[in-house]
Amino acid sequence: MKKLPDKTIERLSMYRRNLILCLSQGKKYIYSHELANDLHITPVQVRRDIMLIGYSGTLRKGYDVEEMIKLIGTIIDTEQGKNVAVIGVGNLGRAIISYINGKRSKLKIVAAFDSDSEKSGKLYAGVRVFHLKELETQILEKNISIAILTVPGDVAEEIAERLITAGIKGILNYTPRPLNIPSHIYLEEYDMITSIEKVAYHSKSAEEMNYSYR
Amino acid sequence: MKKLPDKTIERLSMYRRNLILCLSQGKKYIYSHELANDLHITPVQVRRDIMLIGYSGTLRKGYDVEEMIKLIGTIIDTEQGKNVAVIGVGNLGRAIISYINGKRSKLKIVAAFDSDSEKSGKLYAGVRVFHLKELETQILEKNISIAILTVPGDVAEEIAERLITAGIKGILNYTPRPLNIPSHIYLEEYDMITSIEKVAYHSKSAEEMNYSYR
Repeated sequence: MKKLPDKTIERLSMYRRNLILCLSQGKKYIYSHELANDLHITPVQVRRDIMLIGYSGTLRKGYDVEEMIKLIGTIIDTEQGKNVAVIGVGNLGRAIISYINGKRSKLKIVAAFDSDSEKSGKLYAGVRVFHLKELETQILEKNISIAILTVPGDVAEEIAERLITAGIKGILNYTPRPLNIPSHIYLEEYDMITSIEKVAYHSKSAEEMNYSYR
Repeated sequence: MKKLPDKTIERLSMYRRNLILCLSQGKKYIYSHELANDLHITPVQVRRDIMLIGYSGTLRKGYDVEEMIKLIGTIIDTEQGKNVAVIGVGNLGRAIISYINGKRSKLKIVAAFDSDSEKSGKLYAGVRVFHLKELETQILEKNISIAILTVPGDVAEEIAERLITAGIKGILNYTPRPLNIPSHIYLEEYDMITSIEKVAYHSKSAEEMNYSYR
């Protein structure tokens, strides 16, 4: 099985998020146009994605919510799950720990790291904080394969190098510094400023557009 | 001037982030291949974007960093700037306030809101917290046009409706709940779980791929 496109994985993840929400509200079947509407995409796109992963609903009832959640799980998750570390336990690191943990059974934040000794040994939403000097030993011991970076920009590169040497397979970079890492390591980067600037640009009024562009 | 594509705006924002970094490191000129390398895209893409905004560097020295920062500013920003509110002052809300404020002179977080009265009147990184019941009056008074939503998912929709009625022009939704809002309001949504699931999928090993897909 060859890898699915990035955008498809992104949508499958979002379908699952919506399907889990449906299930919690007692909804057992869902139509493609309902999923499409929630995600601001076309029903055709939804049906294409769902066909791609080898599922078909019934015309009358739509997709079986529980079955689809399971099927998406076989694609995104692994049987034994993945262990995740958060590097940098500031506000963002803590927000991520409490947001992610408990939401997906196959993705588990098992350790957090910070250079501040005061934080060592503390627990945030059940996750223990280790000092950064223990990074390599804990990654090995806890079989951690994914790292979420929320450290200050000026140490991002150095920490990324240590993570890769320690055997990390994927990095989610929330620092303001873009990373250059070997191509066999999967890197996902997100910058809040870029998102807010997109909103700012697109919410410009007509007069503002005239000013800003010759 | 018609609107530029979403992806172009995203890249312009990232170019600017990198150019500001260059300037702080004393670098006055930059080549397209350097910018491309930092952003993991092709030099051709960079040159196409830069041409699109009507700028050309010199072959010998590359682009003038300071000029390009200014030019991108005229496209993304407005002359008088935009006022932003953060709704929900948990860990994520606080992380956003301290991350964004002070980074861009034309985007300013001028108020934060929370339903917890204990937080009312407090300051986070210089931003005052108001009770949610003051949302409408403060948006009007402070001329706020952009809102960043970090409230719990179950109140996201209700708050979004209040924001829109109060005259907000753009929303950045960080709650786990996708929003359905009128098309004249610009909506940008981001879910951390989706990002981390993309990393998890792409960092699967070959054996894991075999398990997970028939």
